[in-house]
Amino acid sequence: MSPAHKLCMIPGPIEFHEDVLQAMATPATSHVAPNFIPAFGESIELLRKVLFTTGQPFIIAGSGTLGWDMTACNLVEAGEDVLVCNSGYFGDRFGECLETYGAKVTHLRVPIGESPKLAAVAAALKAKKFKAITITHVDTSTGVLSDIKGIAEVVRTESPETLVIVDGVCSVGSEEIRMDAWGIDVVVTASQKALGAPPGLCIMGVSERAIGVFKARKTPVANYYANWNRWLPIMNAYESRKPSYFATPAVQNVFALHVSLKQIVEQGVEQRFVAHKEASAKAKKFIHDLGLTLVPTKVEHAANGMSAVYYPEGVAATDLLPKLAAHGIVAAGGLHVEIAPKYFRIGHMGISVTEPERGHLDATLNALKASLAECGYKGAL
Amino acid sequence: MSPAHKLCMIPGPIEFHEDVLQAMATPATSHVAPNFIPAFGESIELLRKVLFTTGQPFIIAGSGTLGWDMTACNLVEAGEDVLVCNSGYFGDRFGECLETYGAKVTHLRVPIGESPKLAAVAAALKAKKFKAITITHVDTSTGVLSDIKGIAEVVRTESPETLVIVDGVCSVGSEEIRMDAWGIDVVVTASQKALGAPPGLCIMGVSERAIGVFKARKTPVANYYANWNRWLPIMNAYESRKPSYFATPAVQNVFALHVSLKQIVEQGVEQRFVAHKEASAKAKKFIHDLGLTLVPTKVEHAANGMSAVYYPEGVAATDLLPKLAAHGIVAAGGLHVEIAPKYFRIGHMGISVTEPERGHLDATLNALKASLAECGYKGAL
Repeated sequence: MSPAHKLCMIPGPIEFHEDVLQAMATPATSHVAPNFIPAFGESIELLRKVLFTTGQPFIIAGSGTLGWDMTACNLVEAGEDVLVCNSGYFGDRFGECLETYGAKVTHLRVPIGESPKLAAVAAALKAKKFKAITITHVDTSTGVLSDIKGIAEVVRTESPETLVIVDGVCSVGSEEIRMDAWGIDVVVTASQKALGAPPGLCIMGVSERAIGVFKARKTPVANYYANWNRWLPIMNAYESRKPSYFATPAVQNVFALHVSLKQIVEQGVEQRFVAHKEASAKAKKFIHDLGLTLVPTKVEHAANGMSAVYYPEGVAATDLLPKLAAHGIVAAGGLHVEIAPKYFRIGHMGISVTEPERGHLDATLNALKASLAECGYKGAL
Repeated sequence: MSPAHKLCMIPGPIEFHEDVLQAMATPATSHVAPNFIPAFGESIELLRKVLFTTGQPFIIAGSGTLGWDMTACNLVEAGEDVLVCNSGYFGDRFGECLETYGAKVTHLRVPIGESPKLAAVAAALKAKKFKAITITHVDTSTGVLSDIKGIAEVVRTESPETLVIVDGVCSVGSEEIRMDAWGIDVVVTASQKALGAPPGLCIMGVSERAIGVFKARKTPVANYYANWNRWLPIMNAYESRKPSYFATPAVQNVFALHVSLKQIVEQGVEQRFVAHKEASAKAKKFIHDLGLTLVPTKVEHAANGMSAVYYPEGVAATDLLPKLAAHGIVAAGGLHVEIAPKYFRIGHMGISVTEPERGHLDATLNALKASLAECGYKGAL
């Protein structure tokens, strides 16, 4: 760690393992080099283990946002209806993306801090036939965790053909996801959150069923770079340990992702879920004991990889965040437009929770307590 | 350089400076961190110097291919005509991308190894009104260099409103480009070629005129991630040294690009053009003296950053490339589908030519001579 480095305790990018960072500095390597092809191919295989799926992973140069385009342009045809379970900023944005490709979007909105209710999802599915339903697993803007297992069950009961699409950008690697067992068709994510690698890769898992729906499209895909017809042969080639080319992959980022995925699978995906739940419980108890209030209205639907917390009375963003930074902790401000100045966000994902001996979470919570005191907050300190 | 590292002498990714690689291993940093914002903002400013433009640069997580989507979806509206100067594989692909967004594409094809002729461009522009013309500056598949200055002059004479769009993926940083002086509206490029950074960033320069055409669109942009309406405020914010968010940037890749752009501008862009011409002349003379033939039919329209070379009689791809690799040199096979097994490609860009004391080019040429001899080639050895 460089001396000037502050701990990056935001809900992504997160702190990286030293071996991951070292992989980012891999010397120049051809995208069809004998050492790169197996790293890419094995990353695809490892993603299946992380997502508990026999489906098709994708690893593409871009950001998680590109995964929305990939979902919208490949799986939805113009004029088809999509139900968006909207628990914050990212539901709004995913809806906009779907509309760009001609989807007719119905938002099932919940108040800030609430998670989508199963009964409301069931009622919406009874009222109209939807090609797909999208759920933001963890809305990074509010820290709300949606019950994707429960929602997928409701979908399979009420409307079995509806594709279940999960925005897992802020959940893959920190929250429990079992794609095949739970009947989830698409998981969109990115490299820089609980997968523990630097930003720059759009990552997806797509069920065999969804690939079948894609292949049965009646209209052409209205996007060039995001078109799975171009990427499926590439993913298949790398997995078969063969060279192929559509667009130059982000070689160093893929090497880094490969290192992180190997660590995740070797340490155990199940154990990772437990570690994130325990770290989150510790963080939430500390926050509660300080007399602070979470943005999620109930701890049962609060994310395990992050905490969104209201500033206590008399403490403002401009006070607390710089004080945390002075203690060596980078936290994030609010993002949801309706409450942005009223809350802050802390990430607790990846090595900061799976390797507690690093002391990241303790340092963060202690810095929070000290910074609040410096802000003049007495509360429950 | 790691002991196992072979020199990556393909037409991108290219060899990186040690400081660039070190920047790739920057510890976890927020995309709105006080040390990241100025690195991003200054990279935008430096790109203006590299491209000789007052226009708008873009730096986006993705590959160069994404730049085609950005051009096609933002600047062309469905039903508009586009003239594609097609000098190889990448002209075909850019044409496909344009058609995806509804453009009516006319290909001005030249035989393999030839560059587009000015008279043919003039005739095509007289025959029909085109919204835009695209030119692959260096077609990485053939090593052909197109005369973008000459073509832009013809456009300004024959059809002044036509947008001049240059695919500079394999030319920015190695070939002379003067966007404003030559009347070029768009340059699409990527991080991993002569800009000297690892792959993972789509990079563009867009003229003020083209931004005006974009803002005057009549129809909405049919793409979400590539939509400039979302990216213009982000680029403006970073350049103004303010935080902003649409999609998480590839933080480490941007730090690395920043280091490379600073080196390029500090060493002098003009001097860089000269260095690439000199290195190319040396490589081409060596290749000629070996009795080998370039894919470009004339050295006047051969790229300065790479050489595409036919195998001599009796030498095959399966023979030469592994022998070069055994000498520590990674070269690339053919890419143009009609002649792919008949030729190979060598990159000579970036630090491999601007820092000749590293000996990359000499090592490559000597390895080529030795490998040909090992293949049983007598020729002019």
